[in-house]
Amino acid sequence: MTTKVAVAGASGYAGGEILRLLLGHPGVQDGSIEIGALTAGGNAGAALGSLQPHLTPLAGRMLEDTNPEVLGGHDVVFLALPHGKSAEIAGRLAESVTIIDCGADFRLGEAAEWDRYYGGHHAGTWPYGLPELPGNREALHGAKRIAVPGCYPSSANLAITPAVAAGLVRPEVTVVAVSGSSGAGRSLRTDLLGSEIIGSARAYGVGGAHRHTPEIIQNLSRFAGGEVSVSFTPVLAPMARGILATCVAPLAPGVTPDEDAIRAVYAAAYADEPFVHVLPQGQLPQTSSVIGSNTVHVQVTVDERAGRLVALAALDNLTKGTAGGAVQSMNLALGLPETQGLPIAGVAP
Amino acid sequence: MTTKVAVAGASGYAGGEILRLLLGHPGVQDGSIEIGALTAGGNAGAALGSLQPHLTPLAGRMLEDTNPEVLGGHDVVFLALPHGKSAEIAGRLAESVTIIDCGADFRLGEAAEWDRYYGGHHAGTWPYGLPELPGNREALHGAKRIAVPGCYPSSANLAITPAVAAGLVRPEVTVVAVSGSSGAGRSLRTDLLGSEIIGSARAYGVGGAHRHTPEIIQNLSRFAGGEVSVSFTPVLAPMARGILATCVAPLAPGVTPDEDAIRAVYAAAYADEPFVHVLPQGQLPQTSSVIGSNTVHVQVTVDERAGRLVALAALDNLTKGTAGGAVQSMNLALGLPETQGLPIAGVAP
Amino acid sequence: MTTKVAVAGASGYAGGEILRLLLGHPGVQDGSIEIGALTAGGNAGAALGSLQPHLTPLAGRMLEDTNPEVLGGHDVVFLALPHGKSAEIAGRLAESVTIIDCGADFRLGEAAEWDRYYGGHHAGTWPYGLPELPGNREALHGAKRIAVPGCYPSSANLAITPAVAAGLVRPEVTVVAVSGSSGAGRSLRTDLLGSEIIGSARAYGVGGAHRHTPEIIQNLSRFAGGEVSVSFTPVLAPMARGILATCVAPLAPGVTPDEDAIRAVYAAAYADEPFVHVLPQGQLPQTSSVIGSNTVHVQVTVDERAGRLVALAALDNLTKGTAGGAVQSMNLALGLPETQGLPIAGVAP
Amino acid sequence: MTTKVAVAGASGYAGGEILRLLLGHPGVQDGSIEIGALTAGGNAGAALGSLQPHLTPLAGRMLEDTNPEVLGGHDVVFLALPHGKSAEIAGRLAESVTIIDCGADFRLGEAAEWDRYYGGHHAGTWPYGLPELPGNREALHGAKRIAVPGCYPSSANLAITPAVAAGLVRPEVTVVAVSGSSGAGRSLRTDLLGSEIIGSARAYGVGGAHRHTPEIIQNLSRFAGGEVSVSFTPVLAPMARGILATCVAPLAPGVTPDEDAIRAVYAAAYADEPFVHVLPQGQLPQTSSVIGSNTVHVQVTVDERAGRLVALAALDNLTKGTAGGAVQSMNLALGLPETQGLPIAGVAP
Repeated sequence: MTTKVAVAGASGYAGGEILRLLLGHPGVQDGSIEIGALTAGGNAGAALGSLQPHLTPLAGRMLEDTNPEVLGGHDVVFLALPHGKSAEIAGRLAESVTIIDCGADFRLGEAAEWDRYYGGHHAGTWPYGLPELPGNREALHGAKRIAVPGCYPSSANLAITPAVAAGLVRPEVTVVAVSGSSGAGRSLRTDLLGSEIIGSARAYGVGGAHRHTPEIIQNLSRFAGGEVSVSFTPVLAPMARGILATCVAPLAPGVTPDEDAIRAVYAAAYADEPFVHVLPQGQLPQTSSVIGSNTVHVQVTVDERAGRLVALAALDNLTKGTAGGAVQSMNLALGLPETQGLPIAGVAP
Repeated sequence: MTTKVAVAGASGYAGGEILRLLLGHPGVQDGSIEIGALTAGGNAGAALGSLQPHLTPLAGRMLEDTNPEVLGGHDVVFLALPHGKSAEIAGRLAESVTIIDCGADFRLGEAAEWDRYYGGHHAGTWPYGLPELPGNREALHGAKRIAVPGCYPSSANLAITPAVAAGLVRPEVTVVAVSGSSGAGRSLRTDLLGSEIIGSARAYGVGGAHRHTPEIIQNLSRFAGGEVSVSFTPVLAPMARGILATCVAPLAPGVTPDEDAIRAVYAAAYADEPFVHVLPQGQLPQTSSVIGSNTVHVQVTVDERAGRLVALAALDNLTKGTAGGAVQSMNLALGLPETQGLPIAGVAP
Repeated sequence: MTTKVAVAGASGYAGGEILRLLLGHPGVQDGSIEIGALTAGGNAGAALGSLQPHLTPLAGRMLEDTNPEVLGGHDVVFLALPHGKSAEIAGRLAESVTIIDCGADFRLGEAAEWDRYYGGHHAGTWPYGLPELPGNREALHGAKRIAVPGCYPSSANLAITPAVAAGLVRPEVTVVAVSGSSGAGRSLRTDLLGSEIIGSARAYGVGGAHRHTPEIIQNLSRFAGGEVSVSFTPVLAPMARGILATCVAPLAPGVTPDEDAIRAVYAAAYADEPFVHVLPQGQLPQTSSVIGSNTVHVQVTVDERAGRLVALAALDNLTKGTAGGAVQSMNLALGLPETQGLPIAGVAP
Repeated sequence: MTTKVAVAGASGYAGGEILRLLLGHPGVQDGSIEIGALTAGGNAGAALGSLQPHLTPLAGRMLEDTNPEVLGGHDVVFLALPHGKSAEIAGRLAESVTIIDCGADFRLGEAAEWDRYYGGHHAGTWPYGLPELPGNREALHGAKRIAVPGCYPSSANLAITPAVAAGLVRPEVTVVAVSGSSGAGRSLRTDLLGSEIIGSARAYGVGGAHRHTPEIIQNLSRFAGGEVSVSFTPVLAPMARGILATCVAPLAPGVTPDEDAIRAVYAAAYADEPFVHVLPQGQLPQTSSVIGSNTVHVQVTVDERAGRLVALAALDNLTKGTAGGAVQSMNLALGLPETQGLPIAGVAP
């Protein structure tokens, strides 16, 4: 029996990356998974090849309009839509359809948080597609509704959660995450033009204003026995892909600044994770090592003089940070091997 | 039975890319192909992960010394060595070993050409690993010795050969090819530092001095009934990967500047090629569409006012231009499906 | 007496660069030149600092609407507007106003050429702001109307004109020019987003379609005794600024391929030019050497085997290619020293 | 009387930038300052143009050997040498020579700090060339020995000092600073190759290991009444120039999170500084705005939820961060107007 998969938002970066991964998925290659409808908003009616020329095998496919009728006849529907649109579409699809949402609609537990950062009605929560955080994987097996995490939370939470969960640090975390421009999507904004991006590093959403802030807090607070204070600053750098998250927190009272012991905590946390690789001591994460892959490189160090723990993670915002997490979630939802179709080696240099 | 594969030069860019592709090869994934010795020169003794951190699954592998003893016990040996080194190593491996050479040693037919551009003794020629040029594929089936083409010839020849072979142009070709910095390898040179590469376009090897010039000429002349005059200028652009070759030639006397007819020639030439994609009219090749893939995007247009044919090709110099061509050649040599393990979709944006 | 200068189109890249140069101009620093109205289209009403944050000294200036009333009371008006707009504005300014147009409206001599490449009514021609081509400088002294050349013609014509004028080559020139993204202006187009520009080289306007083609031809034909056949291909590279033009032409019959003699022709052609620097033999132009400056680096070589002359030029498309050429023209028009306020050293690395 | 200036280390990035600024300095243009000896280590004997092709007006100058004899006959000597070399040279120059050291030798007050981070004998301290920190400018007037600050301290300290000095924050600062590759100098290291830098963000010197850490602490502690705890993480981004420093600190007990009041503190601190520009509320620093200039863009915000102050600064590491600071110091030392020859507008886009 064939599993039929649709991608809504196929002309954007996240949708394109889902398709790139599906094209390399053994299920698609052996025919057990079929790539069905590809939909878009304003780009409906165009050939995919004119908008995503890198998806050569699908170049001739026509984009259809994103609506429940087109998406309805599929077993799996990936939603790669602007936030606020997923809830609407999802509500009109049958419960038997596996919906994997790359938007923010079903990530936040608190209605007040949703309203504060996104505005308006809170849609609810779905199982959270970051299986590497304790307790999450179980809920994804066979799930029919999955909320894929934001790209910054994926990086920041994988970097700092083991330290928070083990009580190594006080719950006062500072995150500065450097990201490539594709994280901002394919939006027509002057500040995203190549001429403005190239040669420039700039912060945005400073002062706790970025929408991923409550998601990082929510993920961390689960393991801290109380709300964790998080200062999050995203920085845009002149590269298309990749996030490097630097997370700094004061060592908790009584914790010895023993780097070996702290590294052992991280090694244990990720020992069985196929996609999280704790680097050898002395080696630091770099985004180039994980581009195009579903891999996360993590390192942790201690700044003894400052009494801080410094944890870092590098991932590809479009792969592990979005589309790779989505396909990983699909694999879990469908009962396939979790790593199927997901590259572990990055494309470098 | 397992096919055991070694990579000589595993700490360089070409060697790393061969390994990245092998990691995604179905043969490696099902165990029928085994990644054996990884060797290096000065880096022997180091862990691969310290030099190629993107090859996470092989991070713990130790680099051995490049010598015939280490390489000897393998069924397939990829050579990704400085030119002039391959002949020496190859001469000391058994004839039963399939050797796939990414260097220049066995590409040029004329001893005088070799001496002029590389200096010294000419090693001979091997079947040429560009199956998309007429007549080449046959010689690669079951071959024990293969010379992988240079990255510039791969792009320039795939762009302009159909026009030359069909007699559409006079045999006076101008090629200007823009390349990413990885084409220069991992050499420590001031002019390859990030600070010098970023923000700069610069030509090099101007005036016919680049070593790929005779290879482009040799490939073209086979189809022209005489030596083709080629002016080749490589230009370095601030990107890590990718080549965009622009080839310009005067229309031959009597050829009507009919773009549809000329496009039909190209469509026919590449109709059965899995890795060469002639773009729809009006769409132009861009390197971002083919990064990390074995795909070549080709377009041809006519400049009626100037009486010239302009043909363009985009490919990834490390993938189709080197390591992808090498794995494609391995597939042919081993009797495997030609496309196995070779991505067709590029990593974009 | 103070010379009052207005800039129309001050929120775009060309307008911003004019202002950057004016801020460093001795006339502005000693008060003999005053920066008057800064105007824009849709951005009128905004503070300049919100759109051009690099122009710190003018951050508080408000953008006014581009119209003849606002521009009228100035001695010099720079027009950095979309093509077709300059003629309209210029027609409504007094003849006593020195107008320096960075647009294309007054560059092409032939009405048919204008109609073919830009469409519609031909506005006429003004003295051409490329004083380095023989005969041009004289017409700029005291001129009240000046057409600043296009950035590609500035580079291509400075590279190849000496060879054409001296009869060294046949009048069949191939130009491939690699440009940074700022040449496309600050337009909101998906293909100009940072995520699409970074990591990609792509040609555009292939087949003689680019609007700068007839301008290159017109400039060259003046020195060739007949129309020169030019094939021009622009290539976009992942950098914000800079053009590297590679120009290739067959050596004329009877011309000895003597690089020294040919270099002497170039050295003589530019001996007295403050902004054109013929590089020493063996050194090749790179755009990074001229960024932010009004300098052009030129080199010429001979490809003896192919019988071609290869000439290259590097310049900054926004400085010498647009705003620097405009300020240089202003200096000539006002009787100031030609080099005033124009950096010769580039910003590198 | 002419002031004769030498630059030791003229083939490196810092030395090249000093020369670029000197070429635009009114003193050099009117002949009151003369550019004398240009010296180098291994590059002595080469023409400057072969190593710094962007310094076109000095292209023919020959590099001499860096030694006290060559440097001796000058009024001002800029030292742009590897750390540890300045002390040696300086000790052999007459006291009447104004020495401006871009190295680290004379920055740190504590011998133990020097030994810990640089190793070996502590040379002492000189007046510190960051006039924007209270108390520093006075010591630079007429100084004969000046230590130019490190590029990271220049950015971090200008961002966070006003908050620390005003007691707005607890003395526990986290700094994550994103830098371009030129900060690493022109060293031949594999990890600085363009192919490795492009497309990658990576941290280094993590855990307090970077040598600029004690300098940031020393500068801050002067204003805090005790040692400030600083966690400093530098991150390399794919750009040639620029530093964006993000500084985060907990609001001090009793401080109201009133952004207007906090902004007023910053506005007052920099009211008279020609090179420090506090951006309007809502506008964030970006390195592209200050490239090639001596300007620093600063912003400060409050994250009320997290109880933190977030301060940011952008500067050009080679200009304000090194060579611009050096020329600014020279101006003060020679009694020239402080801003002479130092661009305030950046080169953008």
